[in-house]
Amino acid sequence: MSIRAPYYLFIGDAIEPYSIKLAMGIATWRPELAVGELSLEGCKVTTGLVNIDIDSAIKRGAKTLVMGFANNGGTIENKWIATILRAIESGMDIASGLHQRLDSVPQIAEHAKKYSVQLIDVRHPSQIFETGTGNPRTGKRLLTVGTDCSAGKMFTALAIHQEMQRRKLDASFRATGQSGIFIAGNGVAIDCVVADFIAGAVEYLSPVNENDHWDIIEGQGSLFHPAFAGVSLGLLHGAQADALVLCHVERREHMRGIPGRLLPSIEEVMQANLNAARLTNANAQFIGLSVNTSMLSESESENICQKYQQQFDLPCVDPLRHGVVPLMDSLQDKLR
Amino acid sequence: MSIRAPYYLFIGDAIEPYSIKLAMGIATWRPELAVGELSLEGCKVTTGLVNIDIDSAIKRGAKTLVMGFANNGGTIENKWIATILRAIESGMDIASGLHQRLDSVPQIAEHAKKYSVQLIDVRHPSQIFETGTGNPRTGKRLLTVGTDCSAGKMFTALAIHQEMQRRKLDASFRATGQSGIFIAGNGVAIDCVVADFIAGAVEYLSPVNENDHWDIIEGQGSLFHPAFAGVSLGLLHGAQADALVLCHVERREHMRGIPGRLLPSIEEVMQANLNAARLTNANAQFIGLSVNTSMLSESESENICQKYQQQFDLPCVDPLRHGVVPLMDSLQDKLR
Repeated sequence: MSIRAPYYLFIGDAIEPYSIKLAMGIATWRPELAVGELSLEGCKVTTGLVNIDIDSAIKRGAKTLVMGFANNGGTIENKWIATILRAIESGMDIASGLHQRLDSVPQIAEHAKKYSVQLIDVRHPSQIFETGTGNPRTGKRLLTVGTDCSAGKMFTALAIHQEMQRRKLDASFRATGQSGIFIAGNGVAIDCVVADFIAGAVEYLSPVNENDHWDIIEGQGSLFHPAFAGVSLGLLHGAQADALVLCHVERREHMRGIPGRLLPSIEEVMQANLNAARLTNANAQFIGLSVNTSMLSESESENICQKYQQQFDLPCVDPLRHGVVPLMDSLQDKLR
Repeated sequence: MSIRAPYYLFIGDAIEPYSIKLAMGIATWRPELAVGELSLEGCKVTTGLVNIDIDSAIKRGAKTLVMGFANNGGTIENKWIATILRAIESGMDIASGLHQRLDSVPQIAEHAKKYSVQLIDVRHPSQIFETGTGNPRTGKRLLTVGTDCSAGKMFTALAIHQEMQRRKLDASFRATGQSGIFIAGNGVAIDCVVADFIAGAVEYLSPVNENDHWDIIEGQGSLFHPAFAGVSLGLLHGAQADALVLCHVERREHMRGIPGRLLPSIEEVMQANLNAARLTNANAQFIGLSVNTSMLSESESENICQKYQQQFDLPCVDPLRHGVVPLMDSLQDKLR
């Protein structure tokens, strides 16, 4: 799927910052992709982009209304439908990362047909995939892997991709989750693919390329998450990564969504990922660590990164605090 | 999903024995579930069950016409439709393991509605699953795991289940693939589930149970298959197996469907499965090996099983040649 930019970010009547995570991802990483945001009465948050009405958005060239927010359950609420219909009348495509399909609302389906616009549900991949083969393909690949879900795998991949572009390297960011897909404009929501095709979908997402081209592939889940490890393993095998970056959140008390289940050690996560990665790339190696230290003071953050740097003999950064230059230096050093 | 027995096994105009694998599975393991088979002109194979027409099948109480054969591509061919419509008119449900949905053929969908019969597509699970939790649940569980796909995981699980019933143990066979689902009458085609829900679907399939109840769970794929390892890992985590049985095919030249890719060693497969299984069951252990030695002579088969028995200090059988009594003895010894 391919989402037409520029976007017009619909944040509804959201109250919690967390609920507009998707719009925030776009505003943070690709503000140039968005003409502005649209909120409804009662909305208490903002992406920081200009708040404009549909007519202004059209004047600024908006091609797609992006549902940039989520509710519990991922359903399309009645109070949002009028806005969606007006955007369709203006000729905009509608793109959503909600669980409920856009075309399951009859008014939206009929309107989209009448005005010949696309309805894009990133959680419902429409591609036909093949099963994976594990056969080597040209081009270089980096994958972010984690001790847990929500451990900075997308952020780290985007930061590395940005640094690669700054260094004029030939690189593509390959999105495997909703936010990433909106930021990249395309991708595959890998956890929404039928189980048989996880690895095959990643082979499709990151195809044969020039020898010196880098795909920076967004990781998902964790080999140690009891719900999602299957997704992580299929993604690891399909990615055939040359370079791995370990992502971790310092001081998280339990695995995401599973109170009482402690995080695995970084060491065992690295070893398990290396063992599994080598099935499809015998030369897979870690080139660094990316640690979210937002719960730590500045000096604690420095200390923990230094500690890991020594322990694993690899650069370790909090990408938000320190950037990813040391990771890129390590990558260029190890995989020149 | 639950498939109503007795079945009437439709084998179409199949020519190759392999293409009626599904019907053969039922005829082998649960002949009492089937009233007979139905073939079309040109059919060159048989399940060995009595070949009868629809009227006779109805007289014998048939409740479901089972599409017991497959073609390349898994589509519903026109030449089969008249038979399906007549079965519907007789009040039979239709159950299929083909890729193409039964209700995608308008005549079949309309007829099913008119005669109020169920259309069951085992490759399209209709249940709503939750994501997995990895939380311990009561009851005991055995899972068959393999060095490769098609390594005897269903056969071994069914043989162990049969031996448990003979010993009057409280046990259920839990099907995770098409053939197994028809044999059990229910189950979840785990490779057809959306990737996010692999482990959760297995937790659903094998729920909390009495302390001394055994679920014998059919394994899928292999942690070392580059296409399907994600399915195998989610299944392993969801199963929370107390007991594992390693299934292997002797003298297979490459991983199924991947010419040139050698099979992993039994040792590394056992180690990888144990490492991963312990995420959700710290006490997971292997209780034996099940080896398909159909490519070997009688004496070679004996020798290889003895060799593995010594190497791994666990009983090793070819279940077709030797039965599974040694595996059950080991299970009762190790997990009394």
